[in-house]
Amino acid sequence: MAGTDKSNLVENGGASDTLSLAVILVEPQMGENIGMASRAMLNCGLTDLRLVRPRDGWPNSKANNSASGADVVVDGARVFDTTTEAIADLSVVYAATARPRDMIKRVMTPRHGVPQLRKKADVGQACGVLFGGERAGLENADVALADVVLQAPLNPGFRSLNLGHAVMMVCYEWYQTGSEAPAEFLPEGRTRQATKGELVNFFERLESALDDSGFLHVLEKRPVMVRNIRNIFQRAQLTEQELRTLHGIVSALRP
Amino acid sequence: MAGTDKSNLVENGGASDTLSLAVILVEPQMGENIGMASRAMLNCGLTDLRLVRPRDGWPNSKANNSASGADVVVDGARVFDTTTEAIADLSVVYAATARPRDMIKRVMTPRHGVPQLRKKADVGQACGVLFGGERAGLENADVALADVVLQAPLNPGFRSLNLGHAVMMVCYEWYQTGSEAPAEFLPEGRTRQATKGELVNFFERLESALDDSGFLHVLEKRPVMVRNIRNIFQRAQLTEQELRTLHGIVSALRP
Repeated sequence: MAGTDKSNLVENGGASDTLSLAVILVEPQMGENIGMASRAMLNCGLTDLRLVRPRDGWPNSKANNSASGADVVVDGARVFDTTTEAIADLSVVYAATARPRDMIKRVMTPRHGVPQLRKKADVGQACGVLFGGERAGLENADVALADVVLQAPLNPGFRSLNLGHAVMMVCYEWYQTGSEAPAEFLPEGRTRQATKGELVNFFERLESALDDSGFLHVLEKRPVMVRNIRNIFQRAQLTEQELRTLHGIVSALRP
Repeated sequence: MAGTDKSNLVENGGASDTLSLAVILVEPQMGENIGMASRAMLNCGLTDLRLVRPRDGWPNSKANNSASGADVVVDGARVFDTTTEAIADLSVVYAATARPRDMIKRVMTPRHGVPQLRKKADVGQACGVLFGGERAGLENADVALADVVLQAPLNPGFRSLNLGHAVMMVCYEWYQTGSEAPAEFLPEGRTRQATKGELVNFFERLESALDDSGFLHVLEKRPVMVRNIRNIFQRAQLTEQELRTLHGIVSALRP
């Protein structure tokens, strides 16, 4: 399956197995959510899934069904009796949970905290994030094992996240931190951005056609109208191919 | 239900109905995914859900079941026959999809593009994001209606996102853009960060106890050891309450 293509992950700046984040689900209830969490992990290049006392036992075919192809994560999941055992090999553990009452624990947003976690992974520290079960989230005893609480700013009137969504949010932040993808680009494929010369050539052709048709016949308004028309097409960031299409349109409509 | 408490949303810097983002699902298949998308929307303070030709008709009880309380979104969803009708009142529409082939369309990451969308909403433009159905995503004809394609950097070997996760990702970016939540804080509740004076008072008490017990008896090593011990407790960013606990421990262990 494509998802196991490690070299591909590394090439694209995503997390590889040598720079990984463990996802630990404590007492997850529904297999569907374990599967959705697995899918979210693999979407973000992560495969180290650990389950503490999954309610319906393990393996769970519902997890495979809802993983939609992320079987490498589901099938590789390790099951533990206690949270302590599940995180024994990790050096840095964050807990994704609402802020626990009566506990003094540093709280970070995922936006701020996950990149810090990734920096720790960058220098070789084994990192993981704890997620609680669907009904009650993490117990205080589990949160006390963590270094930091991750809590996303959300609608204060409706904070309860689906388990898979919570995992998606953290894994998404993890992957974005390592991604070198351009924030914005214009795919050009077999064409390319038109040059200014090509653009002006089209403008002049269009304006000449508009002169011939009488559209620009009020001389004192002509400069403003020409400027406005040029701005419309300027703003469109045309490609060379699109410019040829527009030339064709002018030819077809020309009186 | 708490999720409909608008004033609460506004107070906390989240999206209100006057600064909203429409979520348009085109040919969604599973009611469960529509429900999960609704839950993600309300988690992020959004309620304007629009459905284009939902496969199993509408209303759909499975959507309500999986929305886990976000009924205000599910019950308020509007159904349209075409994408064109669904977005007729919007001024700015982004399409969440893999980059379409053979189409020249600006592509942005959600991290970069969603804040731009929110800026447009800030100045009063009605904004929306299109999401395709589970099987095939958006058709090119729908993408052509959009101003920008939103595409998240993801594991290139396993890019296919669950519909609810895709909606979560975009709504999450929307809410984070408007959030003024501190990136990091230490909840103090009924206690407060210890002062340096309180800290040094504890250090001296501990060091005196360690002198008495003989732990610091090698005089030439004493300064280094004291420094190391002070660093341990310094790093812990202790509260006044925790300091009292540590004083108690020293009293209890004192020979």
